[in-house]
Amino acid sequence: MSSNKILIKNGTIVNDDLIKKADVLINNGIIIAIEDNIEIKNEQVEIIDAKDKLVIPGGIDPHTHMEMPFMGQVAVDDFFTGTRAAVSGGTTMIIDFVVPTKNASLIEAYHTWRSWADPKVVCDYGLSMCVTWWSDKVAEEMTKLTSPEYGINSFKFFLAYKNSLMVDDGEFYKGLKHCSKIKALARVHAENGHIIDEKQKELLEYGITGPEGHIQSRPEEIEAEAVNRACCLADQANCPLYVVHVMSKGAADEIATARMNGQVVFGEPIAAGLALDGKVYYNKDWEMAARYVMSPPLSRKEETKVELMKMLASGQLQLTATDNCTFNCQQKKVGLNDFTKIPNGINGVEDRMSIVWEKGVESGLIDAMKFVSITSSEAAKIFNIYPKKGRISVGSDADIVIWNPHKTRTISASTHHHNLKTNVFEGMIVHGVPEITISRGNIVWKEEKLYIEPGSGKFIPLLPNCNHVFGTMNKKANTKKPISINRNI
Amino acid sequence: MSSNKILIKNGTIVNDDLIKKADVLINNGIIIAIEDNIEIKNEQVEIIDAKDKLVIPGGIDPHTHMEMPFMGQVAVDDFFTGTRAAVSGGTTMIIDFVVPTKNASLIEAYHTWRSWADPKVVCDYGLSMCVTWWSDKVAEEMTKLTSPEYGINSFKFFLAYKNSLMVDDGEFYKGLKHCSKIKALARVHAENGHIIDEKQKELLEYGITGPEGHIQSRPEEIEAEAVNRACCLADQANCPLYVVHVMSKGAADEIATARMNGQVVFGEPIAAGLALDGKVYYNKDWEMAARYVMSPPLSRKEETKVELMKMLASGQLQLTATDNCTFNCQQKKVGLNDFTKIPNGINGVEDRMSIVWEKGVESGLIDAMKFVSITSSEAAKIFNIYPKKGRISVGSDADIVIWNPHKTRTISASTHHHNLKTNVFEGMIVHGVPEITISRGNIVWKEEKLYIEPGSGKFIPLLPNCNHVFGTMNKKANTKKPISINRNI
Amino acid sequence: MSSNKILIKNGTIVNDDLIKKADVLINNGIIIAIEDNIEIKNEQVEIIDAKDKLVIPGGIDPHTHMEMPFMGQVAVDDFFTGTRAAVSGGTTMIIDFVVPTKNASLIEAYHTWRSWADPKVVCDYGLSMCVTWWSDKVAEEMTKLTSPEYGINSFKFFLAYKNSLMVDDGEFYKGLKHCSKIKALARVHAENGHIIDEKQKELLEYGITGPEGHIQSRPEEIEAEAVNRACCLADQANCPLYVVHVMSKGAADEIATARMNGQVVFGEPIAAGLALDGKVYYNKDWEMAARYVMSPPLSRKEETKVELMKMLASGQLQLTATDNCTFNCQQKKVGLNDFTKIPNGINGVEDRMSIVWEKGVESGLIDAMKFVSITSSEAAKIFNIYPKKGRISVGSDADIVIWNPHKTRTISASTHHHNLKTNVFEGMIVHGVPEITISRGNIVWKEEKLYIEPGSGKFIPLLPNCNHVFGTMNKKANTKKPISINRNI
Amino acid sequence: MSSNKILIKNGTIVNDDLIKKADVLINNGIIIAIEDNIEIKNEQVEIIDAKDKLVIPGGIDPHTHMEMPFMGQVAVDDFFTGTRAAVSGGTTMIIDFVVPTKNASLIEAYHTWRSWADPKVVCDYGLSMCVTWWSDKVAEEMTKLTSPEYGINSFKFFLAYKNSLMVDDGEFYKGLKHCSKIKALARVHAENGHIIDEKQKELLEYGITGPEGHIQSRPEEIEAEAVNRACCLADQANCPLYVVHVMSKGAADEIATARMNGQVVFGEPIAAGLALDGKVYYNKDWEMAARYVMSPPLSRKEETKVELMKMLASGQLQLTATDNCTFNCQQKKVGLNDFTKIPNGINGVEDRMSIVWEKGVESGLIDAMKFVSITSSEAAKIFNIYPKKGRISVGSDADIVIWNPHKTRTISASTHHHNLKTNVFEGMIVHGVPEITISRGNIVWKEEKLYIEPGSGKFIPLLPNCNHVFGTMNKKANTKKPISINRNI
Repeated sequence: MSSNKILIKNGTIVNDDLIKKADVLINNGIIIAIEDNIEIKNEQVEIIDAKDKLVIPGGIDPHTHMEMPFMGQVAVDDFFTGTRAAVSGGTTMIIDFVVPTKNASLIEAYHTWRSWADPKVVCDYGLSMCVTWWSDKVAEEMTKLTSPEYGINSFKFFLAYKNSLMVDDGEFYKGLKHCSKIKALARVHAENGHIIDEKQKELLEYGITGPEGHIQSRPEEIEAEAVNRACCLADQANCPLYVVHVMSKGAADEIATARMNGQVVFGEPIAAGLALDGKVYYNKDWEMAARYVMSPPLSRKEETKVELMKMLASGQLQLTATDNCTFNCQQKKVGLNDFTKIPNGINGVEDRMSIVWEKGVESGLIDAMKFVSITSSEAAKIFNIYPKKGRISVGSDADIVIWNPHKTRTISASTHHHNLKTNVFEGMIVHGVPEITISRGNIVWKEEKLYIEPGSGKFIPLLPNCNHVFGTMNKKANTKKPISINRNI
Repeated sequence: MSSNKILIKNGTIVNDDLIKKADVLINNGIIIAIEDNIEIKNEQVEIIDAKDKLVIPGGIDPHTHMEMPFMGQVAVDDFFTGTRAAVSGGTTMIIDFVVPTKNASLIEAYHTWRSWADPKVVCDYGLSMCVTWWSDKVAEEMTKLTSPEYGINSFKFFLAYKNSLMVDDGEFYKGLKHCSKIKALARVHAENGHIIDEKQKELLEYGITGPEGHIQSRPEEIEAEAVNRACCLADQANCPLYVVHVMSKGAADEIATARMNGQVVFGEPIAAGLALDGKVYYNKDWEMAARYVMSPPLSRKEETKVELMKMLASGQLQLTATDNCTFNCQQKKVGLNDFTKIPNGINGVEDRMSIVWEKGVESGLIDAMKFVSITSSEAAKIFNIYPKKGRISVGSDADIVIWNPHKTRTISASTHHHNLKTNVFEGMIVHGVPEITISRGNIVWKEEKLYIEPGSGKFIPLLPNCNHVFGTMNKKANTKKPISINRNI
Repeated sequence: MSSNKILIKNGTIVNDDLIKKADVLINNGIIIAIEDNIEIKNEQVEIIDAKDKLVIPGGIDPHTHMEMPFMGQVAVDDFFTGTRAAVSGGTTMIIDFVVPTKNASLIEAYHTWRSWADPKVVCDYGLSMCVTWWSDKVAEEMTKLTSPEYGINSFKFFLAYKNSLMVDDGEFYKGLKHCSKIKALARVHAENGHIIDEKQKELLEYGITGPEGHIQSRPEEIEAEAVNRACCLADQANCPLYVVHVMSKGAADEIATARMNGQVVFGEPIAAGLALDGKVYYNKDWEMAARYVMSPPLSRKEETKVELMKMLASGQLQLTATDNCTFNCQQKKVGLNDFTKIPNGINGVEDRMSIVWEKGVESGLIDAMKFVSITSSEAAKIFNIYPKKGRISVGSDADIVIWNPHKTRTISASTHHHNLKTNVFEGMIVHGVPEITISRGNIVWKEEKLYIEPGSGKFIPLLPNCNHVFGTMNKKANTKKPISINRNI
Repeated sequence: MSSNKILIKNGTIVNDDLIKKADVLINNGIIIAIEDNIEIKNEQVEIIDAKDKLVIPGGIDPHTHMEMPFMGQVAVDDFFTGTRAAVSGGTTMIIDFVVPTKNASLIEAYHTWRSWADPKVVCDYGLSMCVTWWSDKVAEEMTKLTSPEYGINSFKFFLAYKNSLMVDDGEFYKGLKHCSKIKALARVHAENGHIIDEKQKELLEYGITGPEGHIQSRPEEIEAEAVNRACCLADQANCPLYVVHVMSKGAADEIATARMNGQVVFGEPIAAGLALDGKVYYNKDWEMAARYVMSPPLSRKEETKVELMKMLASGQLQLTATDNCTFNCQQKKVGLNDFTKIPNGINGVEDRMSIVWEKGVESGLIDAMKFVSITSSEAAKIFNIYPKKGRISVGSDADIVIWNPHKTRTISASTHHHNLKTNVFEGMIVHGVPEITISRGNIVWKEEKLYIEPGSGKFIPLLPNCNHVFGTMNKKANTKKPISINRNI
């Protein structure tokens, strides 16, 4: 559903620093004017009336896994259905992960992922690279990947998944040091993989095979432990750190402590963590319980949801993602007799924006500007694509959502756009509805209809040495230089 | 030194969210274009070459006391010399305090302050109102003062200065509730006045009469205590809170805790607190020691300076001010035999920008964007004048500084522009020099020369119900409604 | 039920530092031997078989209000029924409070309380003095009261009950300084009375008149605030501090922080706070809800009970009390239409020991030695009567309980020994049953029968300058001496 | 210098719970009476006049390494000179470590250590076992070692010393679970060995070879990290934990947090950590700097010393040790060109008691009872030998020190009794002097003379399942049982 020019009239623009009424004019995918009462004459222009609506930057989800091969399965939402779900929910860009296996080439994996995504995406996307082993070769490839040719500016390390994705503290530290050197952001999945491994064995021996074993094998204290450790190592390596899927208050507290001690650390809670808690794993219905299996698991504490939103409100967590990685019932059932085999992953990319609005703005914890910040602007800043993305400003990409803050909708698999018959937020009523989604100047979602085309999204190269991430690191390095004493021995 | 049009060429614009190279065109005091390679032909335009320089929003100092009558003296920097010092240092707006005495009319005091300031200011200014007693009359006047006619959107309460400015917890709480109602920001001077009063007596009885008594009568623990109390009361009153002159880590921690608990609290350290510590009060030279007497005093801990900057870096403190209130040697000597009589106050408005750059950016704790945020943008946001102030953007006031981050200068009374022969930062070498200051489109400072005229600055009305402050308060109020149980008794 | 000699055979003695099997021989109210297999021949001796039972020091409840005149009522448990309830539950000593009204003589009030208690008590008791106003006369009387003639070594201050018992921060600080001087322990009821006063008015205006108003008028945050303030002031006054009835985790955290900062601070949770929470105030049945009205109120957080026990376990809180102050239904009804008039107070002295055992030992948070510590030994140490009380040792008073850790009982008003038809712990099943209570060598409780006589208990003078409280204070004072600078001015 | 009977007259006995004046009578190595005015007639009895002196339980040092083979050297103080130094300083028992190498038998190593110690010790001693690898065999041997035949009730794990002593988190967790099962206490050396390994390489590459490299390769943040991790794992394994040589406030805070969360965790600072700080490593004199090389290193923060004592005062750290492991100058010089080769270790066993008195009691942070607690009683309790050791009570071993709190001495290698020509506390003046030391009823130190005989000390078997350590663990285990859901799948 495209037209070169779109004019959004009468809306209230919300950026992360400002709310103001103004019209927005789009041409060829770019915002070309923001003014009061823009009038266009004698031209073909699509006019959107945004009266009583908010005009916000399209959401950016910095953490998805489309068509990800994992635990013997492949996530059912591929880059087509995944981005389709995204735009239906008001998200116009995702950052997905390339996950090379141990000993595999990072660059080869990169190409594989590009080949999957490029023909399918219906909105823009970027990539982040996982580092699952360490060698000089890995370091070299990391360096290469930060060139504009590849456009990778972040690398993710796993402290969990022993014997598959996990690196040990020595490898992680070397990775952090290399990231620091090439000015790339280090991201971390923080759980203590050694303990999970032992706990899984214990629980299985004890006779626990159901999804309740999942949460019990991954007590949230070992997430906090690993976050503390990761922050400590990042500090030692003088490297900015980004903790993905912060699921517990303990983990969030460790991030806040590191930040208040002067470190550059970012924390990303996810939609599920802001809306759900871990009692679901004890559901009598196996399918229901298995649906929520993801790692780290949902918090066992009911109050965590609100605590995490408070940490976003106070600025100690910075942005929200989803870890969207969808497996269907059939796939989940691979772990019917052994919870450790249930593929980890849940949906989220479609519903994140509404969830955050409901739990944040509607509950009085954040205002609309902070909403824009934690769903879009901050991601754009951290991944170095601001203000091209993440802001309604002249010259920015026309990734825009017409947001109705007064309307509610009921989340349901029966209406969502995932390739999935279930939804972890099923039945939740949320304020905040994306009425129109515009991606690169094209209306892709309107009146609950999609107007999309596979491959219409673009790969957005993400460049290293971002001001928002590395702005202080050189000076910091100076203060951390080793001290040498001259002695006559 | 004025011209209708100014064109700033080749500079690097720094806003709180972005660094980019572009030219800036100013007309009639307003920024009218920000573009690459702006060319102006056939027009009278003053051209500034900002190559290798930063182009930043003029500083906003949200806490000054020009020509303040206090402790039997009147501060020597009046609104002329005070704002003269400000623009010399790269600050283009101040927010000063009206301080009515107990039982006096707030509105009368307001007019007094306006009559002092309007004819003298050489840059824009706003006002904040102190509330030193409580009655229905006070509440009524507060309400009136928030109208555009008066332009007051913040009220300050003192928990110190027993028997003069101090309010008790009951009065403070009522004030907070009224602020909440009229959507005005409550500000607080947080020290426990009861204890100070007793400590002063103890020390004098003990025979301690010198400035070392000042710091000993106001241990920083009682600042933290009062901040904790103020946050608690503000939470109970559902009122946003702004803690002025945060001088200790303990106080900053209390603010951080309140924020992480979901409260809207802002914390303001001042230039002196970021650069100095309290050992100065033990100086053998009475004049030297007395020079630093202000309240709360400089921290007795050497590391506090850095800790406060870290709290700014992490976003738990938000902005910097000065509490500029200058008394000369003669005035300070009133307290020669009794430290409790030394007029409280120090300079800062001229040097704040350089101090913050040196201690923040140069030391690797914050980047240039954060520098802009904590010296300008955040003040503009909190006091509801953003982006008219606090941002380099089209339509904003042309309050701009050409900042040389590579140059250093030595702070000295011999070169500063205060009406004062001493400077608490004397001899400090700082990176970051304001080469040109533009106020409302006029160059007021260039090549170390001033081009100013008394009364050229304007009073900027500050309006209540600011999105950045009150954006969440209505929804928060909903969650705090009293719960009533219906019973058949 | 008395005999000069009692021999306890086969029991397991538990002191706060040791568990061991041994027999205990009592003569004339004193423990005269603790050995294996004590054999007594040819003598009249009562033999108790304590096989599989614990032999523990009788409980000491350091916080009761028997027959207290309060809020227009007099507590229904007088010193007879109150101590009767105590011994039935395994407590053999109480410390009650003298509460002079504002402007009244402390010494006269002391005599009043002695005249009430002496003829009635069935176990030993001591007194603590409340200080509800300040003057030189008060200070003088405090000094006198610490002489052996009066036997008062602690003074309690109220930061709540505005306009009746409350002192302001200045008065409190002067009181603390005087306590420090006379080596008496300062105790504090810590809630912010100013805020309570305002909240009460707000809630009544809002139309809330029931007991749900009680908890809402006293949010636990204002308890934490006042504890923080009290610790701060005590530090400034160099005075040990004892916080009575710690009811919230926030309050306990403040105590822990002060302690870790080197202060001498003690914290006393009470039985009700370890077993109940504040949802009771929302009970639809007014009488049920009013029954629990006490100040500070029970915590609104379900988890507080356990958190407080953890703080006891870690040693950050030190001992348990009850604040026993019983009002019957008739009395509570004075506040039927106004929750602020409901007399504050609940039972506890009879059930404390069992409650602490159940919530502490049975739940795995503390061991039996810690149980003895927090129910008896620590109180004896703090109030300077150890090891005469609080320990099973040769030479100690024979205040002993034969404790059955395996048995359970159901708490009920139908079986308790209070002068009251209700019990706030009604229906609770608890492990840990006092099978026999021995007071001063007399069996006063056995096989669920009482053998008591009014006036058989003794007043125990409590002497100041206790090693456990003041052991470090002189050296601490040295480190806090004011510093004076010699200057030639 | 022995006599069957010793009578200590006129002294002030200090136990951890009580200070009282009484005479003490010793017979055959056991305290047989504690009474006022003991008179012995017609018997050969050595009388000690302890007027104005304290009579305290002999110190117990729970962490020494006598004649330890480490880093290619053997510690120069063997069990003779080491225990000689101990008794000279008022310590009458040590607990030393058996350190089997990876893959070696624990039991064989045990016998080796016994064969070294038994013929040489001049006071009593016990042993703790290090676990440096993991296998079923190790587990079996651990179980055996807890029998009375071997008398081992604690096992120590290293999270540092990569490639030699270090275990990974999986091994550590398995070790903790086994300790929990056999009711033995787990002890841990907590530093992140991976990071140290990398930091050492970095620093050497950077050209730093001197002792300043030692502290820089082991930043104290990685101690706190490892303590946090160890506490987390111990909690997951339901095992009590004892952290040896707590050297930083960060580490101590982690322990306090774990304790306040209900865990059984003990923390042991050492004499050096309470008296010294890390600036010594930057000494221009290599020998001076190398002398202090131990791990974890002395804190880089001057205030840590006091902070650790405050944590002892508040009960969040429990006892003091030394990690005594002495290498002479010659041995230290092995690392002349590579700091990683300097043998780690310092003295302490002789001076600990005086250091703790000076830094604790004399500075006003702890009282004399707490002094006894943290130098003796608590060790006796934790290692299950109380009140045989650690208390002046009838029936206890006569390990007693006559302590002069008023006298001072200057610590010096010229007067100490180590087999070492240097002393890390050289020149320090300390209050608190052990005038007489009695071990097992024999005077071994008096008037600065030793009366000792190799082998006169005994091996004290330490038995598992100590009440003070495991008293709550069974009940705790109940609350941690896995939860299983029955489902019809």
